Amino acid sequence: MIRGNDPILLTPGPLTTSLATKQAMLRDWGSWDAAFNAITGSLCEDLVRIVHGEGTHVCVPMQGSGTFSVEAAIANVVPRDGKVLVPQNGAYCQRILKICKAIGRACVELPIPEDQPASAAAIEAALAADPSITHVAQVHCETGAGVLNPLPEIAQLCARLGKGLIVDAMSSFGAIEIDARTMPFDALVAATGKCIEGVPGMGFVLVRKDVLEASQGNSHSLALDLYDQYVYMRKTTQWRFTPPTHVVAAFRAALDQYLAEGGQAVRGERYRRNCAALIDGMRELGFRPFLRPEVQAPIIVTFHAPDDPRYDFKTFYAKVRERGYILYPGKLTQVETFRVGCIGAIDDNEMRNVVSAIWLTLREMGIDMAAQLAKAA
Amino acid sequence: MIRGNDPILLTPGPLTTSLATKQAMLRDWGSWDAAFNAITGSLCEDLVRIVHGEGTHVCVPMQGSGTFSVEAAIANVVPRDGKVLVPQNGAYCQRILKICKAIGRACVELPIPEDQPASAAAIEAALAADPSITHVAQVHCETGAGVLNPLPEIAQLCARLGKGLIVDAMSSFGAIEIDARTMPFDALVAATGKCIEGVPGMGFVLVRKDVLEASQGNSHSLALDLYDQYVYMRKTTQWRFTPPTHVVAAFRAALDQYLAEGGQAVRGERYRRNCAALIDGMRELGFRPFLRPEVQAPIIVTFHAPDDPRYDFKTFYAKVRERGYILYPGKLTQVETFRVGCIGAIDDNEMRNVVSAIWLTLREMGIDMAAQLAKAA
Repeated sequence: MIRGNDPILLTPGPLTTSLATKQAMLRDWGSWDAAFNAITGSLCEDLVRIVHGEGTHVCVPMQGSGTFSVEAAIANVVPRDGKVLVPQNGAYCQRILKICKAIGRACVELPIPEDQPASAAAIEAALAADPSITHVAQVHCETGAGVLNPLPEIAQLCARLGKGLIVDAMSSFGAIEIDARTMPFDALVAATGKCIEGVPGMGFVLVRKDVLEASQGNSHSLALDLYDQYVYMRKTTQWRFTPPTHVVAAFRAALDQYLAEGGQAVRGERYRRNCAALIDGMRELGFRPFLRPEVQAPIIVTFHAPDDPRYDFKTFYAKVRERGYILYPGKLTQVETFRVGCIGAIDDNEMRNVVSAIWLTLREMGIDMAAQLAKAA
Repeated sequence: MIRGNDPILLTPGPLTTSLATKQAMLRDWGSWDAAFNAITGSLCEDLVRIVHGEGTHVCVPMQGSGTFSVEAAIANVVPRDGKVLVPQNGAYCQRILKICKAIGRACVELPIPEDQPASAAAIEAALAADPSITHVAQVHCETGAGVLNPLPEIAQLCARLGKGLIVDAMSSFGAIEIDARTMPFDALVAATGKCIEGVPGMGFVLVRKDVLEASQGNSHSLALDLYDQYVYMRKTTQWRFTPPTHVVAAFRAALDQYLAEGGQAVRGERYRRNCAALIDGMRELGFRPFLRPEVQAPIIVTFHAPDDPRYDFKTFYAKVRERGYILYPGKLTQVETFRVGCIGAIDDNEMRNVVSAIWLTLREMGIDMAAQLAKAA
């Protein structure tokens, strides 16, 4: 049996990383050693710089998945008697509500249809209706459906009204412009295994220094206490508890490649090309994207599943996988969909190839896409 | 300039791993993909088997460092109105007390000198003195000084008195015998980057199935909720939140090597040989171990620093590092010490080499070890 190459991940993190990034994990690092701590320090500086937060914001890395950092950010930034408004248009917004409930922070849901972006106007109305709300927790790119929420407007609104803002920028950071000077935020959360194209295993919070310094005692947890992590790291240059050393080293390598590629503008442009090639190709096959183009972030695209009795996602997934591509299931409750990620160490050629793989799979499954095309027309 | 090999880590995790373990990270895995979830499943089965917990215990992996899993175990296993006794003979016992305070679990410290092991008799007296104590949280090998605490006696005591037992077996799991049948415990916590010789980035809790199933609602956190992680994983075979995929794959490779080497008995024997070679060599140089041999675990050895004005740890560390070995600072408050780990993908030959490197360093620093030898005699 010939063992082929590993499949390409078209999932919104973990994603396909470059060989150079993975090769950075071929060394063991001492977590007490200055050579390792210099890596952590340089990462934090670079991450702050990506959002133009020099002087106002600091970066606190945190072990675990991105969700661990979201929980840490909410717990530290929102005082125990604070109240959080969550504009809700997808699975990751719902997760923030779940976190607030688990850690005992009052929260209010602002429901938004999952194919619509949040709007500053609706948030302003919700804040006016409940003046006890102290913070807004906003998902930037909601990968549940793939919607880009309008961060600049929401950030300016929060600043104007004096409300704290926590941004879950997990799947947008590094690819979509974020500027702390014009889009003020208290805390912004992302992780290694997303648009910087590192491997998963740590998150980080870019947090206003004054907000963080006032957050002592807010945390419900020792492990997830951002303040404690920050103070210890500033004093010793080390992590409080064992860092995921190989993940950190791979992230440094990924960030070096990101900067060499040209940073956010160039990375974002590559993903936009990927996204356009994917949507164009899929439309030709008769697939319809779930979102209107104006609200579609170039991160992950949700497609309606073929309306055909011979279609089932499990078979479709397995057969596309055999052809070298790992797709992602839909995360919508009402409509049958699947998702294809546009991020990772891949280019638009890869997107045309996955469209071909999908076409061959449909043919093999006996699905009549001409009928789909006719319906879509 | 010739770039030498990477230094060997003589630290108690992260430690030096084999090349095969690191090479397992040269692939990207989809966290939704069955191939990856099969790895997680097989890891959990093997980890339960190592402590003979088949049928009684389950394994719940958790993102983050080992401390994240300790916090998760305490939060889930100890009800919100429970009370934890912590026999305290070092830094990791102190950390458990800190966790209990941070998450709001009542706790009682049983102070023990840091060069002495905990004893079942002292724990029994403490439990008798305060019948409201519901659980004991015991560090197995306290790497602050390197003491092995007598888990079998403590586990049997807790079982006899009907107290819950949580074991922090971070640095003993896989190397020192643990048998759930004869040393009953509610939960036992360890992590990837220790005696199984994986890379750091996840922990795991081996927990009694009935205790875990009764723990819904105990957790103070969403990210660290063991119950939620377990239920989701059982239902879907997936992790709730993005797993550290490369760390998981490396852990599978490390565990394969562990089993091929012969498992706990053989791994423990290798570490005992490492420890003996280290102590013998260091004694010849005039160094004294901090602990009596009876209480010394074969995991990490604390040595008294040379009593010489020319000695300082920073210089000593840097010069031994140049010779290829990364040592560990002491963690004791009263006495000046340093530590040398005996664990990782290394053998007793490596320990003799580090002794030589230390000898050359002392000579270079102008430290008169003959005087130390005379004092020790």
